[in-house]
Amino acid sequence: MPRQRVTLITLGVGDLDRARDFYAGWGWQAHPASQPGIIFYQMNGTVLGLFGRGDLAADQGRSGAALGTGAVTLAQNCADEAETDAVFDAALQAGAACLKRPEKVFWGGYSGYFADPDGHVWEIACNPFWPLAADGSLTLPDPD
Amino acid sequence: MPRQRVTLITLGVGDLDRARDFYAGWGWQAHPASQPGIIFYQMNGTVLGLFGRGDLAADQGRSGAALGTGAVTLAQNCADEAETDAVFDAALQAGAACLKRPEKVFWGGYSGYFADPDGHVWEIACNPFWPLAADGSLTLPDPD
Repeated sequence: MPRQRVTLITLGVGDLDRARDFYAGWGWQAHPASQPGIIFYQMNGTVLGLFGRGDLAADQGRSGAALGTGAVTLAQNCADEAETDAVFDAALQAGAACLKRPEKVFWGGYSGYFADPDGHVWEIACNPFWPLAADGSLTLPDPD
Repeated sequence: MPRQRVTLITLGVGDLDRARDFYAGWGWQAHPASQPGIIFYQMNGTVLGLFGRGDLAADQGRSGAALGTGAVTLAQNCADEAETDAVFDAALQAGAACLKRPEKVFWGGYSGYFADPDGHVWEIACNPFWPLAADGSLTLPDPD
């Protein structure tokens, strides 16, 4: 099995119903494997999970710990600037907090950030140097 | 392009050299697309990035913000309990802080947690109900 892998990204949330409603509003469909207390979304070869923050702390062996957000960002790259704007605006309409509207950035792409209702930060971007496969997966190109 | 995707997971770190050394010690190889100030690792259809925490805050439009960790966990599922132990122990040897050694858990799997030098939490697990593809990608099974 390759060493460099992520199987599941879990976001600890303060209110599971609120979090589920946000991701539904952004257009995500929960997978039938979801169970009471944990919600799963199939992604491009990986899975996103929503799980109560207290449950997550207990699962980590840190009951009562104050878990923080913001130092991990999840980026979703889009085909072009128009799709980036559309995906970003859909998140705002679903209740995300805008951190930085998509704009041209110094590295040659186009990128914005929002925070979901629990403070988890998403970057929505397009990167002309990183072509995506049809399923949305990314294989880094070798430098010239 | 599918709506439910993650292209890039970025971990904000306090000391980029220390973080790179930890991931190298755990057996990860940086991709040649890495640049001064940001390190990339090819994963199963997605990319992991290491980026200075201050740079990440500025990129989010929140210069000076205190970004927190722990409320996002990244899980790497393994083929069996022996591989789970081996991957976990390799991380500890590379300098990770053990939060909970891998043990049998109530949902029928085997799971442990560690924190990397910046407090980013990884779960190393095996889940007999979620078979992995050869490249390590996960497609959620439909419930019975």
